[in-house]
Amino acid sequence: MKILIIGATGTIGQAVIGALSPRHDIVAASRSSAGFPVDITRHDSVQALFERVGRVDAIVSTAGGLHFGPLSTMTAAQFNVGLQDKLLGQVDLALTGQHFLNDGGSITLTSGIVAEEPIASGANASAVNAALDGFVRGAAVELARGIRINVVSPNVLQESMGVYGPFFPGFEAVPASRVALAYVRSVEGVQTGRVYKVW
Amino acid sequence: MKILIIGATGTIGQAVIGALSPRHDIVAASRSSAGFPVDITRHDSVQALFERVGRVDAIVSTAGGLHFGPLSTMTAAQFNVGLQDKLLGQVDLALTGQHFLNDGGSITLTSGIVAEEPIASGANASAVNAALDGFVRGAAVELARGIRINVVSPNVLQESMGVYGPFFPGFEAVPASRVALAYVRSVEGVQTGRVYKVW
Repeated sequence: MKILIIGATGTIGQAVIGALSPRHDIVAASRSSAGFPVDITRHDSVQALFERVGRVDAIVSTAGGLHFGPLSTMTAAQFNVGLQDKLLGQVDLALTGQHFLNDGGSITLTSGIVAEEPIASGANASAVNAALDGFVRGAAVELARGIRINVVSPNVLQESMGVYGPFFPGFEAVPASRVALAYVRSVEGVQTGRVYKVW
Repeated sequence: MKILIIGATGTIGQAVIGALSPRHDIVAASRSSAGFPVDITRHDSVQALFERVGRVDAIVSTAGGLHFGPLSTMTAAQFNVGLQDKLLGQVDLALTGQHFLNDGGSITLTSGIVAEEPIASGANASAVNAALDGFVRGAAVELARGIRINVVSPNVLQESMGVYGPFFPGFEAVPASRVALAYVRSVEGVQTGRVYKVW
């Protein structure tokens, strides 16, 4: 398969490439990519990426920023950061990407455990991740031509515990290599509308 | 209690007022209200509403618009309509409203069954409603001074079947009076972080 991965330079993106590249052709896109740069918060940038890449068999997104901060001082403008980036950015990859997928292709997005297991300073993450889980349920029933859509909801990564550890007390951190399996399951499997929880 | 209801002129808003007004002082706000007008998509409008109303014991939102339309032609800009209105609008009522609530007060928002039970043309509704369910889980663990937050997730209303019926085949429509009970449970009860499913 020809697989477009957006967020290719991140910890999860790198692990997904490691898991898929032995069997597939990978197109690695990211904000800082020289060959396939994309800013998912701008629709013109998303559109330009797909026009450059052309038709693909699978789209995998491991991209998107959130707002982390205390609820007591959180503003609507701060909250909107996560809505425009991790949520609408990934939704746009699906909405735009559906028209560049071959029949029977797939879309795999990324949410996270905070959708169901809240943490301090994580209200934006809870909303955005839950929205992504809801979006794939809603989109799966409408996608045409056998196109599937799923989302991977990872626990905190072992590789990220140095930075995020204090926000995830007692959470069983998972290695990125294990999270990558869920993307393989989505891309090479047959299911749709699923939230693959790696926790 | 002094209870601020935003979306007071809607079918659910009217039913909630009917259920709460015998025991409480109601401040009825809506987009078209003469006394307490508010456009929840504009933060300055939300801020002005709370400054006009002053301190309250409960905030109830039954407001917010979504984008309905086929996934195959949906754009990111259309999707953003629901993010800015029903999602961010209600989140802003909570973020701003927390500072106007008396100790032990409550916030009650509105999501919907499509968060978990997708329908045709409903991808935006699935995402937005799921986001609201996630937001209350995330916000509940951080709210101070005993302030609680819940969300009511109604099925399609019997009163709305004339308009929305074809989109909800086989769904057991519920009367607004039954949905209103969930708001009473949230306002007068003791729970927090709950999604009250009326379906």
